[in-house]
Amino acid sequence: MGSAVFTSNDVKAAPVLVSRAALARARGDVRAVVVNSGNANACTGDAGMADARAMIAATAAAVGVPRKHVLVASTGVIGQRLPLARVEAGIGAAAATLGRGFDRFAEAILTTDRGAKTARRRVGGATLIGCTKGAGMIAPNMATTLTFVCTDAKLSRAALDRATRRATEQTFNAITVDGDTSTNDMLLVLASGASGATPGGKAFDQALTDLLGDLAVQLMRGGEGVHHVVTVHVGGAKSVAAATAAARAIANSPLVKTAIAGGDPNWGRFLSAAGNAGIRLRPERVDIWLDRVPIVRGGQAAPGPDLEARAARVMQRPEYTLRLDLGAGTAQARYLACDLSHEYVSINADYRT
Amino acid sequence: MGSAVFTSNDVKAAPVLVSRAALARARGDVRAVVVNSGNANACTGDAGMADARAMIAATAAAVGVPRKHVLVASTGVIGQRLPLARVEAGIGAAAATLGRGFDRFAEAILTTDRGAKTARRRVGGATLIGCTKGAGMIAPNMATTLTFVCTDAKLSRAALDRATRRATEQTFNAITVDGDTSTNDMLLVLASGASGATPGGKAFDQALTDLLGDLAVQLMRGGEGVHHVVTVHVGGAKSVAAATAAARAIANSPLVKTAIAGGDPNWGRFLSAAGNAGIRLRPERVDIWLDRVPIVRGGQAAPGPDLEARAARVMQRPEYTLRLDLGAGTAQARYLACDLSHEYVSINADYRT
Repeated sequence: MGSAVFTSNDVKAAPVLVSRAALARARGDVRAVVVNSGNANACTGDAGMADARAMIAATAAAVGVPRKHVLVASTGVIGQRLPLARVEAGIGAAAATLGRGFDRFAEAILTTDRGAKTARRRVGGATLIGCTKGAGMIAPNMATTLTFVCTDAKLSRAALDRATRRATEQTFNAITVDGDTSTNDMLLVLASGASGATPGGKAFDQALTDLLGDLAVQLMRGGEGVHHVVTVHVGGAKSVAAATAAARAIANSPLVKTAIAGGDPNWGRFLSAAGNAGIRLRPERVDIWLDRVPIVRGGQAAPGPDLEARAARVMQRPEYTLRLDLGAGTAQARYLACDLSHEYVSINADYRT
Repeated sequence: MGSAVFTSNDVKAAPVLVSRAALARARGDVRAVVVNSGNANACTGDAGMADARAMIAATAAAVGVPRKHVLVASTGVIGQRLPLARVEAGIGAAAATLGRGFDRFAEAILTTDRGAKTARRRVGGATLIGCTKGAGMIAPNMATTLTFVCTDAKLSRAALDRATRRATEQTFNAITVDGDTSTNDMLLVLASGASGATPGGKAFDQALTDLLGDLAVQLMRGGEGVHHVVTVHVGGAKSVAAATAAARAIANSPLVKTAIAGGDPNWGRFLSAAGNAGIRLRPERVDIWLDRVPIVRGGQAAPGPDLEARAARVMQRPEYTLRLDLGAGTAQARYLACDLSHEYVSINADYRT
């Protein structure tokens, strides 16, 4: 059984279009997935659609399952045809190594990542293993994010769909480097049922969220040019939607990201970014902390000695939390942000996606 | 008669709150405006509101008009109290130089701008003069954008309001460096009626739009770290709203901005950014040009020799146009974008707003 989340970009790569249709047609009965890196097969028209289908056909033949149970994902350069003969030869070679471990797969799908990113969890007699890739600055549009999770738990399609959607919302849909979304993003969860274990819905949801959260942090931490991974935690909001909007606005603000890069507790930027979220913020009710150091109380500089120096020291840490209380309710949300560094500009100005 | 556009940020500086209320109370009858640079008087609570009112009172006394006809604007550091005694002394000194020309005002309101930015237009016997300031990367949140226009045309409040709103929409609301909006942004148009000239509504609208467009380009061009000012022109859209959304998404995309910085005709990023605009883009209908060089036709690489090399040469120019035809209708919109450069990161990581 398989469940997937695909890119929300209107410009969808051929493998995304083909896999989305295949998943629906097979009613979730997915048994194999083939992934290539180096070429995104995006903006390649009808020829690209045929190439994606050819990858499925080659994979079905190589692993001995009907085509309708196979999905395809690609990552790499946009706008160029796949070298199909090479890809088909690679599929044959990869199929010959099946069963030699998930780590080989996690390695094979990388582009310019520093290394493989994997995670494992146990829940109620079942195991989940997952891997993700996102190169450079994890800018999904520069180097697609692909995430795959396999579990031997036995789950209904409905339960798997719900768990996948919920867990993604709190993890891979709550990280940002630059607010862009790739043409090829795909997150796939496959449940074989091989263990016979049927963990309760809530327990499985939690394990999957936990595993995807682990992978999401690894993705941020491992990105080139990333020196600080910052959890933006917005509480005291009127609704989860408002909390999420504020957290996203802060995490996506280039001025906040450069403040993170410079280690500057420039709270005016944090507050102003939240003010741009369109949630009718009442600045005079907002409190802000960097880890446990208060920097804003009631929309103004928090009173106290050495707060700025202490806050600046927090911002030297590789990981810390920027917390806001909006003073408007009890809802909360988290987003993972990072710095906007010189390396980001170099990588993205000089590297051709 | 005066008409103004204020920041849409929920976090509004004291001078914005005070001026907005004063403008409404005076029903547009504005006769003086006082501006300080260096301190934004933002996030300063009740004390900041009192300071803004004190600036108005000092100005009213110095120039001899009732307080209710005076507005105030500030730009600079957020979260610190104004040094009111110094500001009041400055107001007295400035009032003593009134009548020595608009250029002195245009100079005085600068922060780290490279120089004054002014423009002048004539329409139907009336004159318009204007100036703007925006320092660093014109990141409005880093260094507020303040714009002032004076005209001796005679206009009703309704006509002036309409002209101001329309002209701003096409000019200062269609430029972006990083998508942020400052706590202090303000654009004010003052019409004295001194010439007695009453230019027709359309002619005045056009002259004001033209003047503000001139100032907006100067603002982008003069920003530190800006090497390329790019007009993003989206045509063939279903509606002006859709065209604007696509143009804004492209202009705000960090991946597009770094491609501009690197001079890389990376059309996958342009198309993908438009795909993130939420307008139900049909990529297979999209054509893209860099100035007159076609780079995308029907959502794929445009056919032809040397197109990539020619497109790369266009991107060396200090100013050029990135044009998209969405193939969905006849509406169009323009946005001014710029590069995301190493200097942007340096300025914003190291400079305290």
